[in-house]
Amino acid sequence: MKRLSTTPTADGFAMPGEFEPHVGCWVLWPERPDNWRQGAKPAQAAFADVVRGIAQFEPVTVGVSAAQYDNAVNQLPNDVRVVEISNNDSWVRDCGPTFVKNQATGEVRGVDWEFNAWGGLFDGLYFPWDRDDQVARKICELERVDSYRTEGFVLEGGSIHSDGEGTIYTTEECLLSPGRNPDHSKAEIEAKLKEYLGAEKVIWLRQGIYLDETNGHVDNICCVVEPGKVLLAWTDDESDPQYAISQENYDILTRSVDAKGRQIEVVKLPLPKPITITEEESKGVDAVDGTLPRLEGDRLAASYVNFYIANGGLVVPAFGDPADQLAVSVLEEVFPGRTVVSVPAREILLGGGNIHCITQQQPA
Amino acid sequence: MKRLSTTPTADGFAMPGEFEPHVGCWVLWPERPDNWRQGAKPAQAAFADVVRGIAQFEPVTVGVSAAQYDNAVNQLPNDVRVVEISNNDSWVRDCGPTFVKNQATGEVRGVDWEFNAWGGLFDGLYFPWDRDDQVARKICELERVDSYRTEGFVLEGGSIHSDGEGTIYTTEECLLSPGRNPDHSKAEIEAKLKEYLGAEKVIWLRQGIYLDETNGHVDNICCVVEPGKVLLAWTDDESDPQYAISQENYDILTRSVDAKGRQIEVVKLPLPKPITITEEESKGVDAVDGTLPRLEGDRLAASYVNFYIANGGLVVPAFGDPADQLAVSVLEEVFPGRTVVSVPAREILLGGGNIHCITQQQPA
Repeated sequence: MKRLSTTPTADGFAMPGEFEPHVGCWVLWPERPDNWRQGAKPAQAAFADVVRGIAQFEPVTVGVSAAQYDNAVNQLPNDVRVVEISNNDSWVRDCGPTFVKNQATGEVRGVDWEFNAWGGLFDGLYFPWDRDDQVARKICELERVDSYRTEGFVLEGGSIHSDGEGTIYTTEECLLSPGRNPDHSKAEIEAKLKEYLGAEKVIWLRQGIYLDETNGHVDNICCVVEPGKVLLAWTDDESDPQYAISQENYDILTRSVDAKGRQIEVVKLPLPKPITITEEESKGVDAVDGTLPRLEGDRLAASYVNFYIANGGLVVPAFGDPADQLAVSVLEEVFPGRTVVSVPAREILLGGGNIHCITQQQPA
Repeated sequence: MKRLSTTPTADGFAMPGEFEPHVGCWVLWPERPDNWRQGAKPAQAAFADVVRGIAQFEPVTVGVSAAQYDNAVNQLPNDVRVVEISNNDSWVRDCGPTFVKNQATGEVRGVDWEFNAWGGLFDGLYFPWDRDDQVARKICELERVDSYRTEGFVLEGGSIHSDGEGTIYTTEECLLSPGRNPDHSKAEIEAKLKEYLGAEKVIWLRQGIYLDETNGHVDNICCVVEPGKVLLAWTDDESDPQYAISQENYDILTRSVDAKGRQIEVVKLPLPKPITITEEESKGVDAVDGTLPRLEGDRLAASYVNFYIANGGLVVPAFGDPADQLAVSVLEEVFPGRTVVSVPAREILLGGGNIHCITQQQPA
C-alpha cells in the first residue's frame, strides 16, 4: 500500500470521534513476561474477556506473535479474526495507526506515528520498540489502507482524543515531555496535530492521572462523549494528589471553547480508590534490566475513563471497587443509546494501561 | 474463524480449476540462507518479479517474517499487500490453504492440509516445519474464511490439480510416498481427495519430473488448461530419464476419461535442456545439517508446466533456454484469452520449485 508524503488535513482527511461508526476494532495479544505477571496468562484471560465484550458490538481482529499464535486462537472466540503481528507489547492504541477519514469520499487512511515506547531513551518503558513501531504499517497493509508516516515526530494514539469536528484534546505532561519531541515547541506540536488529524483547535489539559507511566495520556483522564461534552476522571478526596490534577483540568475545560465555539460540558466520572500492586503480583513479573519494574506497593493509574466505545456499546474496566457500579451508571446516563459492558481489568491495569489502551477503532 | 470438522464435499464445496476467476494470489517471501543462495537476495528479486507479473492481472498479498518485513515492503510495488506470516520457507502452494468453493452460495473456505516439509522425518527437506504448517490457518483467518483441518492426513497443494468439474490429477510417486501417509492405502488416499476437494474421480499419473525433490508433484509435470485438456511436460530425447516418465504419463492420460467421461486431450509442453547447479550457486547456500544441500552439478527439476494462471494472464518461468520462447508460443496457443508473461526463474528453480510452487490462487 502507498506511503503518502502529503498530510491528512491537506488531503481532506480528519480523525473521527471514537463514538462514530466503526468497521471494527484492533487488539494485540499480551505475552512479555517482564510486564505481565505469570507469563501473561492472567492478562491473556482479561484481554480475551475484553475482546469478547467488544465482539458483541463489532468485528475484532487480534494481532499476535508467531510464538503465541496457536494459544491466542485457542483462547479467543471463533468470530474473532487472529492475525500475526509481531510486537514488543500489546498497546495498539499507542503503536497502532490513528485512522483518518475523508468524509466526502468515505476513504479511510492511517497515520503511522513514530513510536518510541513512551519516551525512548529518555524515559521509555522498555527497549527495543522496533516491532511496535511497525504495527501501524502492518495494520494498514492488512486493511489495504494507505498511510502517512510522521518520521521524526513521535506520538501515541492514547495521548489524543478527537471530537470529530475539529477539536483535539491532549495533555501538556505527555506531548511536551522531553521523551517525545524535545526539538519541537508547543506551537510546532500543535501544528503537527492539526496537519495530521484534520483539526482546527487543540485543547491542552495539564496533567494526566497521577503516576500514569505514559506521561499522562489524555485517554486515561478525559474522553469525548460527543462534540462539546467530555468525561473527566474525578476524585473528591482533597488529600489525594489526583485532586489538584483533576481540578486544574476541570478549570481548563470549563474555560475553553472547542473548534466550533461551543462551551464544553464536563461530566465528572468518579475514580476508584487508589490501587496498589501486591507482593504476589510483583513477584509474578520477570525482572529485566531496561523494562519498568512492577514493585510491591506501587500505585496504579486506575481510571474508568479508559473504556472503549464500540458500535452501540461501551466496554468499561472494573476494579472490584464500589465505584465500579457508579461509573457504569454515569456512563449509561451520558451514553443513552449504548449497552455498557463491565469487564474486570485489574490484570490489564497491572501492565500499565487499560481497555482503551489495548484497543484501536477502525472507522467505517 | 471457524475450524470445521465436517468435509468440504459433504458441505457442498469443491476445488475450482486454477483457470477460474480469482480474488487474488498469495506468495511467501524467501529468506532462509540454507536454501536460497546469497542470503536469498537473488531469489527475493526473482520473487518480486513474479509478484509484479501477477499483480498486472490480480491483487497479490505477500506473507513475510517480521525480520524481513521492511525489506519485502521496500522491494515490492505499492499495490501489493504485505502481511506478516512466519514460515519455514516460501512455498505457499504447498503449505497454504487449498481453497474450495460452494458454487450455489459463492462461499469460499480453506482446506488446511497437514504439512510435513515434503516427507517429514522420512525424507522431508528441512526441520522443523511448524511455521509452515500454520500458514494455511493464518491465511484463512486473515481472509475471514472458515477452514477444514485434515489432522493426520498430509498433503501439499502442489501435488494436486483440479479441473473444477470433479476431476483431480495427482501422482503416485508423491501421494504414495512413505513420507506422506504411509498408514493410508491408495484407495483411502483417493477417498480423502474426493472428500476434501469435491471430486468424483482421481487420475493417477505415475511419476513427476525426474529428480523432483517434492517426490514428483503433479504441478511440475502436468496441469489443466480446461476440463478435458491438460499440458504435459515433454522431451523427445529418449536418452533422458525424463523421456520414459513423460511417455508413461502420456499413456495414462490418453487412456483415461475424466469425471465427466471426456477423453483427455494432452498437449505436450517442451522441457528445457537439463539445468544443473553451478559451483558458484552451490557455494552461496549455507550448509546446515537437516536441510537438503544444493550441490554443484545436481540436476534441477526445471519445467515450464510450473506456471501460474492469473485472471486474464499466465506467468511462466524462463530459464535462458531456447525452449523458453517455444513454451510461450504453446501457452499462447492453448490459452488464447490470456496474456503470457515470461519471468526469469532460475533463482526460484535453485530453491527447489518454480512459479506455481510459490503462488496460491484464492477463488473469487
